[in-house]
Amino acid sequence: MNIGIYPGSFDPITMGHLDIIERAVKVCDHVVVSVITNPNKNPMFTLEERVALIESLVTIYDNVTVDCFSGLLIDYAKIKNANVIIKGLRAVSDFEYECQMAIMNKKLAPNVETVFLMSNNQYSYLSSSMVKEVATLGGCIKGLVPEEIEREIMRKIHE
Amino acid sequence: MNIGIYPGSFDPITMGHLDIIERAVKVCDHVVVSVITNPNKNPMFTLEERVALIESLVTIYDNVTVDCFSGLLIDYAKIKNANVIIKGLRAVSDFEYECQMAIMNKKLAPNVETVFLMSNNQYSYLSSSMVKEVATLGGCIKGLVPEEIEREIMRKIHE
Amino acid sequence: MNIGIYPGSFDPITMGHLDIIERAVKVCDHVVVSVITNPNKNPMFTLEERVALIESLVTIYDNVTVDCFSGLLIDYAKIKNANVIIKGLRAVSDFEYECQMAIMNKKLAPNVETVFLMSNNQYSYLSSSMVKEVATLGGCIKGLVPEEIEREIMRKIHE
Amino acid sequence: MNIGIYPGSFDPITMGHLDIIERAVKVCDHVVVSVITNPNKNPMFTLEERVALIESLVTIYDNVTVDCFSGLLIDYAKIKNANVIIKGLRAVSDFEYECQMAIMNKKLAPNVETVFLMSNNQYSYLSSSMVKEVATLGGCIKGLVPEEIEREIMRKIHE
Amino acid sequence: MNIGIYPGSFDPITMGHLDIIERAVKVCDHVVVSVITNPNKNPMFTLEERVALIESLVTIYDNVTVDCFSGLLIDYAKIKNANVIIKGLRAVSDFEYECQMAIMNKKLAPNVETVFLMSNNQYSYLSSSMVKEVATLGGCIKGLVPEEIEREIMRKIHE
Amino acid sequence: MNIGIYPGSFDPITMGHLDIIERAVKVCDHVVVSVITNPNKNPMFTLEERVALIESLVTIYDNVTVDCFSGLLIDYAKIKNANVIIKGLRAVSDFEYECQMAIMNKKLAPNVETVFLMSNNQYSYLSSSMVKEVATLGGCIKGLVPEEIEREIMRKIHE
Repeated sequence: MNIGIYPGSFDPITMGHLDIIERAVKVCDHVVVSVITNPNKNPMFTLEERVALIESLVTIYDNVTVDCFSGLLIDYAKIKNANVIIKGLRAVSDFEYECQMAIMNKKLAPNVETVFLMSNNQYSYLSSSMVKEVATLGGCIKGLVPEEIEREIMRKIHE
Repeated sequence: MNIGIYPGSFDPITMGHLDIIERAVKVCDHVVVSVITNPNKNPMFTLEERVALIESLVTIYDNVTVDCFSGLLIDYAKIKNANVIIKGLRAVSDFEYECQMAIMNKKLAPNVETVFLMSNNQYSYLSSSMVKEVATLGGCIKGLVPEEIEREIMRKIHE
Repeated sequence: MNIGIYPGSFDPITMGHLDIIERAVKVCDHVVVSVITNPNKNPMFTLEERVALIESLVTIYDNVTVDCFSGLLIDYAKIKNANVIIKGLRAVSDFEYECQMAIMNKKLAPNVETVFLMSNNQYSYLSSSMVKEVATLGGCIKGLVPEEIEREIMRKIHE
Repeated sequence: MNIGIYPGSFDPITMGHLDIIERAVKVCDHVVVSVITNPNKNPMFTLEERVALIESLVTIYDNVTVDCFSGLLIDYAKIKNANVIIKGLRAVSDFEYECQMAIMNKKLAPNVETVFLMSNNQYSYLSSSMVKEVATLGGCIKGLVPEEIEREIMRKIHE
Repeated sequence: MNIGIYPGSFDPITMGHLDIIERAVKVCDHVVVSVITNPNKNPMFTLEERVALIESLVTIYDNVTVDCFSGLLIDYAKIKNANVIIKGLRAVSDFEYECQMAIMNKKLAPNVETVFLMSNNQYSYLSSSMVKEVATLGGCIKGLVPEEIEREIMRKIHE
Repeated sequence: MNIGIYPGSFDPITMGHLDIIERAVKVCDHVVVSVITNPNKNPMFTLEERVALIESLVTIYDNVTVDCFSGLLIDYAKIKNANVIIKGLRAVSDFEYECQMAIMNKKLAPNVETVFLMSNNQYSYLSSSMVKEVATLGGCIKGLVPEEIEREIMRKIHE
């Protein structure tokens, strides 16, 4: 039985993230989408908001739960009894960094396997930060994030 | 339930391939290691020899079978009821080509997911063709392939 | 006034090539799509067939002509009074090779500028050779090439 | 008629930027070199200084103007009636980021085409930040920037 | 006679750095491992601590000395009568940046040659920052740094 | 004392190769430029011609000899008492392949170190095969190869 963790900042979740979740549920019996608690960054959405937004979007799957974590990913995986870490690959620069992380994580926990899924090339250029930048500068982000996320981003910008 | 296909030339199987198989069996309930029937290339080992060599090495797993196929990978996956294609990633050049294949295969069969596993970096430089080249030129290939494969390569070279 | 040459094998033309042509006509006053006469390769379509297939697809533009050439691209550009070479970029491996060619061509003809256009990422995985391989193995190529090209490929395969 | 925008920080303009401008004027009827107003960064030259320095260097072209902008590049392009965005490519890392931007911009404004030009490989290693770093540490930057820029950098450092 | 400088932050030195030093002493008659004085960053170890830690590890070589420097690497190389700069290569992203630096340094000092050594692929995923991050989050860093460095990192974290 | 081997096809030697030789002589006490005997390829110049052409160009160095070899590079290095293999790096694709070779050679002969030198970016786009292709198609190759090589290429083409 595969329990997979899909870690990320998800500030906010994009169509690219949802595409990876859709693929992950086909490979794993259970997927935990888990928001990284990163005190250093200055996020647009709070940790609680990010978890709530993802939860509202994954109700269509009965084998996906949403959570957050701090500390070492591998320690968190053990607590969750996860044997799989899910990562989405987009570009060559992603690939190199993720390779390094996968090898380090294999060393730290040999039983946990990092599994890379290729996001739909329609979403290969998407990142949360680019979506936020475009929205902040007044550009249209329709189709890049689900409609409810689009509304939330607009609300944040006009706060 | 995950049924995974791990396709390749395996001419012959290396420690890098075995590392990927070891990872694949953790993620899939059943793994089919399948040798591609490629009439164009001039292989060192026949299709039958390659299948037999892999079979002798995967007897330690009870959820791995060995097979061969020709034609479209995705059609073969359907016949085998496989929902996962396993690919090992080593380098940036691998990555780009495999991306293209994964996107094409997703288009041809949306239900089959390509899953990328990162081979141990100890084996990241390994390829069947490099092993054969080194062996043919008289170099030592100990540690790059299992001992029985090493013996078979030597036998082929001195034929 | 910009006269652009878009060189390629076009064996056969794909949706990715048509996307680049559509972009090129916005930047150039006149575009010459020119099929490279390459005697070494074993093409699916003859030079005449390739030219005719492209011609049937570019009739919607009044500033695109189709031609073929052999020899040095830069010499051909001079004959055509072209000041621009059009190239489509897809992947990092494309990028490096095309860089080398662009620098060499700049040295050979300083007045001719190589202009790179980014194909729609929907087509970033497309290549004529992959389309032919998929079709030959019985896979569906709908959406990858225009319908008339699909029919012609099928006809060639069943010849 | 092509109206091209060449956006950048130009803090300060280098020989590499000038090489791209020289190429852009051959492909566009009019080129607007436009300095991005980025309040976050801590530039060496003010926006006004950067615009003035570029203006002093492009007087040799009668179809180049210098400007600055904030906000979404695509909105600015519409105001300027530009149909082309000019980008210089140097390395693989540039390429991936610029791809993402080009695809995003194509989505935001389908009528505006991003055109990539390859800077002369003599300047492929040049960046404003590296020039400033070398100058600040006392290294010679002759040949990397025009003489007047060299003098201005020296003046800034000794302020 | 080759005098080589191996510059770096070394905050702290890892098994990957030691692997490069071991290779450098085979190619150079004398190697100066030199810690860059970078006032901007917020290091875990002070400059003096970093120098002392490296010194304790290179006593096995009689042709290695440890030093620190600020300013332009090339000026420092001249003071040390060095004709070689040693750089370790791990990944494609390293490669591009180091290329730019090598070309710039060649321009600044044509007599000093940058020599790239490939770190053992066992260490290709290692970086000081990743080691510190893993240790800070409670992960095991055994085998990534020498034992004495491991102890020092632990001491720093629990300070 | 460093004895370096600079292996290659050198069919024929280009300005880029000469640039690497000029760098190698600064790092090595003796450099052996060695032409690989590759029976599979269809070269423009015979092995003897290639050796003779290189010899005529390296007479300016008193520590460079020219040779040829077949078989495993590492075995040849041992015969020559070489402790260094010299490789020129140009592009990312070179880098990955050369990494794999360097790691394999380190495994085969731990005492021999592969040293990478960065060719002058003026020559980064140069390859023997591109030079031959341009010359065959009637393009000017002045500045890409030494004058005597240019003459020999012309003679070969008009044979």
